[in-house]
Parts: sequence; structure tokens; C-alpha cells
Amino acid sequence: MKVEIVAVGTEILLGDIVNTNAQYLSKELAALGISVYRQSVVGDNEERLLQTFREALTRCDLVIATGGLGPTNDDITKEVASKFFNKELIFHEKSWGYIEDYFNKMGKEPGESNKKQAYFPKDAIILENHHGTAPGAIIKGADDKAIVVLPGPPVEMKNMFKESVLPYLEKYCDRTLVSKVLRVAGVGESTAAEKIKDILDNQTNPTVAPYAKQSDMVFRITASGESEQEAKKLIEPVEKEIRNRLGDNVYAEGDTTMEEVVAKLLIENNLTIAVAESCTGGLLAARLINYPGISEVFMEGAVTYSNDAKIRRLKVKEDTLNKYGAVSEETAREMAEGIAKEAKTNIGVSTTGIAGPGGGTEEKPVGLVYAAIYINGETKVRKLNYTGSRENIRNRATVSVLDWLRRELLLR
Amino acid sequence: MKVEIVAVGTEILLGDIVNTNAQYLSKELAALGISVYRQSVVGDNEERLLQTFREALTRCDLVIATGGLGPTNDDITKEVASKFFNKELIFHEKSWGYIEDYFNKMGKEPGESNKKQAYFPKDAIILENHHGTAPGAIIKGADDKAIVVLPGPPVEMKNMFKESVLPYLEKYCDRTLVSKVLRVAGVGESTAAEKIKDILDNQTNPTVAPYAKQSDMVFRITASGESEQEAKKLIEPVEKEIRNRLGDNVYAEGDTTMEEVVAKLLIENNLTIAVAESCTGGLLAARLINYPGISEVFMEGAVTYSNDAKIRRLKVKEDTLNKYGAVSEETAREMAEGIAKEAKTNIGVSTTGIAGPGGGTEEKPVGLVYAAIYINGETKVRKLNYTGSRENIRNRATVSVLDWLRRELLLR
Repeated sequence: MKVEIVAVGTEILLGDIVNTNAQYLSKELAALGISVYRQSVVGDNEERLLQTFREALTRCDLVIATGGLGPTNDDITKEVASKFFNKELIFHEKSWGYIEDYFNKMGKEPGESNKKQAYFPKDAIILENHHGTAPGAIIKGADDKAIVVLPGPPVEMKNMFKESVLPYLEKYCDRTLVSKVLRVAGVGESTAAEKIKDILDNQTNPTVAPYAKQSDMVFRITASGESEQEAKKLIEPVEKEIRNRLGDNVYAEGDTTMEEVVAKLLIENNLTIAVAESCTGGLLAARLINYPGISEVFMEGAVTYSNDAKIRRLKVKEDTLNKYGAVSEETAREMAEGIAKEAKTNIGVSTTGIAGPGGGTEEKPVGLVYAAIYINGETKVRKLNYTGSRENIRNRATVSVLDWLRRELLLR
Repeated sequence: MKVEIVAVGTEILLGDIVNTNAQYLSKELAALGISVYRQSVVGDNEERLLQTFREALTRCDLVIATGGLGPTNDDITKEVASKFFNKELIFHEKSWGYIEDYFNKMGKEPGESNKKQAYFPKDAIILENHHGTAPGAIIKGADDKAIVVLPGPPVEMKNMFKESVLPYLEKYCDRTLVSKVLRVAGVGESTAAEKIKDILDNQTNPTVAPYAKQSDMVFRITASGESEQEAKKLIEPVEKEIRNRLGDNVYAEGDTTMEEVVAKLLIENNLTIAVAESCTGGLLAARLINYPGISEVFMEGAVTYSNDAKIRRLKVKEDTLNKYGAVSEETAREMAEGIAKEAKTNIGVSTTGIAGPGGGTEEKPVGLVYAAIYINGETKVRKLNYTGSRENIRNRATVSVLDWLRRELLLR
């Protein structure tokens, strides 16, 4: 089965929004083993949309269209699809009931314009919308080719796809795609890719694709099989080999975050933690607290951006600040030890650096960060260097320190 | 001039990446007053790409293609474009020199496969790539229709577009689009839209488009004129009317962030600040510290997630915690007053709430947040309620508190 995805909306052609719907649908269809041959975006224009449907259905069996199901005159997707298949639009009482209910729940009444949303091409399969007013539809032509129309807002589109379109499509599929994501940190993108170059170069089934996003890096292994089990079996040896090559740079699978990995290691090892941040200013604490269970072990965070706060809160020596400066190995060390002592925790983590854009010198340039980890009596300090924007430097330093902490915890 | 955008890459059709390039190009072209009639995505397949070029150039004057300029056999965009225009590929010494330099700077040598990247259709205008190895090109046919090929990685594509394609396109444009963005907070999306409904409904030039992203909301006013000045003049009265209706809910223009607005108000008013966070756990401090100049006024942040830390760091009374709980008006008040006293600042801001997913009760459900602002002797407390994920609740609470602080500072 060949599918094309058509997004309808002038706002996409103006660059006002990104077409994330196409990505979502492509991924879902790939997982079903359905080939997407093209994604298109057209404006809210009857003639051009009609032409797009015509072209697409010459090449493929099914078009999934998103957007243009609203109550205004600009919303024409359903109307053009019914014109394409030469079917009249019929008022659907049940859908109108849903729309009325939807408004009533918010203490409102639907407007006259909403009535448009309850009209559907004759014989269409109507798809309920549990997250908005616009129902969707599967509209079939005489030759069994079809157009699925889905609402544009991602929440409505995704839920309708999962609830109604997926079950409809599954009966057309004979192969299953299974993906596994390995998350990698502490190694550059090109170094990681180099280490598994032969695997990346010689892939057919499974395929291995690298993706990098800030300091986070991901390898996705995707296999196609006649069953989920068969696909999973194909992934196994490739996953094992990648893990073998990248060692403890692989920190998690799937959607598991770095903070979750670190938090679980802390909880398992029964180690309490406190953090003292200067340049990362709250980001490290915020990441750790992303993990709901963290309260068991996270005792305190101190955002000691000023020298005064470093002295008062962390008992960093004034001498140290005067002699070595706030951005120094010595200050980082005293900050980590200080916060652990103050908060009576096993672990103290600190960051101090120059996030820029100003404040850099030749000796201490923008992007220089010192980090320290104190664990039960022992302190290690690292000098880190980053480039890029203030935001980038702060984010990368946060991830590096979390990854370093993960590795220290793995040693225990 | 009509333009279509074609992205080439099977990874987009598989849903592995979002086609953000299309958005970037669409926005840039809209700003030039150039109409984009379609965005398409095709895979790395010669026949299908050739067909796409053929269809697109029947409808429009110029195709901008992104991706498929790499060194591997999968990278075919330049080759297909030259086939389409029936032009032979010629080795370009100067581009090869750039590619060699690029590798040498990283202490590496280009591979034999990189030679492919230095071949271009005869008579093409070659576009230098200062951020990667693949040069781009503008390839013209006999009928003056053209294909611009740009690399896929966004950094390379954007820079090449700005440096080389924009000056090329500007000579084709006779109208200028100017946009102005107004940032809005402290009012729901639908309420804000309702307040300017007639403006949203009756727009032609300028147009007004609303966008909502988490707790941040934006109205973009876009006008088209024969000159930048004329377009700006068209925006003026509409901007004035929107500001009139939305009042101090409009907190900034353009890319100015909430933290920048708050930071500048603090600096102007010569007021120092310290924050004490429980549920937002570092996010409030992290947002404020995003603004580089904040060190003048930001004295300290305390992430007091545990009761112990609230008592020790902020001098919250044990009695208060026992009697009213950590998530209460009373605790929020003592936290704000405590951090200001400890850090000797004019302002103390606190948050304490239940971010979920667990920990909620009937009386204190997930999403309940108390926030307090102490300013020079006076403390105000607010009870806030949010729904959604842990991340959502924490982010929305952070923005609300920043916005509240902004309003308090405006009163001074």
C-alpha cells in the first residue's frame, strides 16, 4: 500500500508553523510497514488542493490529509475531497450532537458556522473527535482509492489517527516495523558514528540511523519482520554490537531521560544529593527534579550566582574567590563540598563558568566551565569547554555534568 | 514569482526528522513577498525526484531543493537537477579546494567520495558553504526556470540561503513584507482572541495571526508594501488597537523574552532579587539567569524541595509546615520572606506546589501551586491551578510567576 500525506494550510506555506503532523504520520505509517512516497503542503485553495489530490491518487492508493476541517470558509479539505470523488455532502446528525456536546461542556453554544463541520460526503466513514470540534472522515472512491481527512491541531489529529485510522490501516499491512532507540552521551557525534561506521554503512534490515540534538545523541535501530517478534530478533545482534562498541556511552533506551537514569542510580545506591550552581543557574536542579521520584534523594539546590551567595551559602572561602576567581577549579571544589556539608548529603555537585556572551578573557574565555562532584569524602573537579550561545553553553554543561555523575555512580 | 520548496530525503518520509527547512525557507520567502505554492518531500529516488522537479517547474518559476548533496550514492539532488536540465556535471577545482580546506581545519583529509561534492552542472552558479562540505548551486534552464540546491543540515542551509540565495532573489521582488510580533501573557488564548476577534476576522493587509505555545502567546502582524516604510506604516494603527485592547497583557515585542523584560525592570528599579523554589525546582532561577545582565540584581536561588531545606535555608517554621503543609499559602509566604531575608534582597519570590504525577489529594490536587512575592516589606500570595504533565505544570507555573512579578514591578 502506497500512501501520500497532504497538509492543507496557508499558514504552513507562510512558514508560520512547522508541519509536525507529517512527521508524526510518516513515523506511524513506517511502523506499520506502509511506504510514504511523498509529503505535500498546499494552501487553502480549492483548485490547487483538487490538483494535489488528483496527482497524489494517480501515484498512490491512499491520501492522508490534515487541516482545513474548521468552521470558516477557508476550511475546504472535506469539501474538495467530496468534489474529487463526486459525492454530495450530507448533514450528519450524530456529529452535530458531538459538536453541541463539546461546546456545552465548556459552557458554550456552537455557532451557526460550526454546522459546516457536521456535513460529510455520502457514505464516508466518520471519525469522532474526542479532543476538538471537527470530526474526520475516510472517503472512498469507486476504485477503492481513498482520502482520509484529519483535523490540523496535532492533539486532535494524533488521537483521531490512533483511535480510528490505525485500526483501519492495520488490515492492509503484512509486515511490522519495530524500532529501538539507544541514547548516547559523553562522546562526540562523529566519534560515535566512526566507531560503528561499518554498521551504518552496511545496513539493510535492520537499519541504523543516528540523530544528534544538542548534547543528546540517539541511534535508532529499525527492523522489518513478518511479526513483531521476528523484527525484534533482527534488532538484537545489532543492538548488542552497538552497545559493545560504545560501552557506557549508551546511557538509556527509548524515551528514558538522563535525569531518570541518574535519579534511579541515586535511589538504588541510597545516596542523597545537593547541587550548587553558578553558570548553569538552576538548570541542573530543574533537570533532576523533572524526575518525579527525586524527592527521596534530592535535598537542596543552591543557585549561587553572586560571590556573596557562594560565601554565605556554601562557605566558599573569600580567599579562594580572591586568589583564583569564581570560575576556577578551587571554587568549584569548595562549592561541591560546601553544599554537601550544608545540606548533609552524600553527594554535592557544582558548576561555575562563563556562559557569555560577555565576561570572557583570554585566560578564561566564554564557554569555560569548572564542575565538581563530591561523593562521601572524595572530590573530583573537571575543566570543560563549550562554544555557542549562552543557552547552548548552559545546556551542554548541564548534560555533561549529569552524564559525569551517572558514570561516577556506575563505578559504585 | 512563484516558488516551490522540495525537500529530498527518505529520513523525512520515514518521520525520523521534521522538515524545519521548509518552514525556514517559507518564512524567508514570505518576507520577500514571494509566494510559496507548495512544499513537497520526496525520497532519495531518482525517478520520483525527477518527476517532482518536472511537476513543480510546470507550476512555478523556481524550485528550492534542500538535502541530498552529501558524498554518498544516496545523495542525488544535484545529479537529478542536472539531468532535468540536460546539463553535464563538471569538476569544480575551487569547490574542491574549499572541501579540502574544510577537512584540513579539522585535522582530517577528505575522502575520495567527497570528490562527488565538487561536481556541478555546467554554467551553474556555485554557492559556497562556510559551515560544511557540500557547496550548493543555482541551476538555470533554457526557459529561465531554475532549481536552487541547498544542503540539508539546517545550519548549512540557512547560512547559504542568507549569504547567497537571498541577494539573488531580492532582484525579483517588488513588494516587501514586514512583520511585527507582540508577545502576550496572563490571559488565555481564547480570551485574547475574543478581545480582538473583529481584527482577526476582517484582516487583509496587514494580517494578524495568533500562535500559542505553552503559556506563551504571540500575535504576528504582517503587512505588505512597496517599501519597508509603507509596510511599517500599515502595521502601526493595527498594533496600536491590539495594544489598546490587550493592555498590559502585551509584555514584549519580537524575540524579547519574559525574563529579559523582568530583568530589565529589576535593574531599572534597582531592586535585588532572590528566589526560593519547591515545585518549579530551579526553573525560575534558570529562566532569570538566561538574561546575561541578571548578575547585577540576582543574588541567590534556593531549590528547597525538602521540608528540611525549607526550614534550614529559608527559616520556614516547622509549625507552619506541620499545620498547613508544604503546599500552602502560609508556607509560600514564609519561603518568599525567608529567602529575601537570608539573601538580603529587596524581593523574594517563592513557589510550592504539586507537580505530579503522584502526590495529589482531593484537597490539594496535582497542579495546585502557591506562589508568593515579597517586595520591600510587603508579601502577596497567589493560589494557581494547572493541568497537564509534570513538565507542563512546572513550566506554566514558572511563566505565570514571572509575569506576575513583571506586573508588580510595573506598578512601582
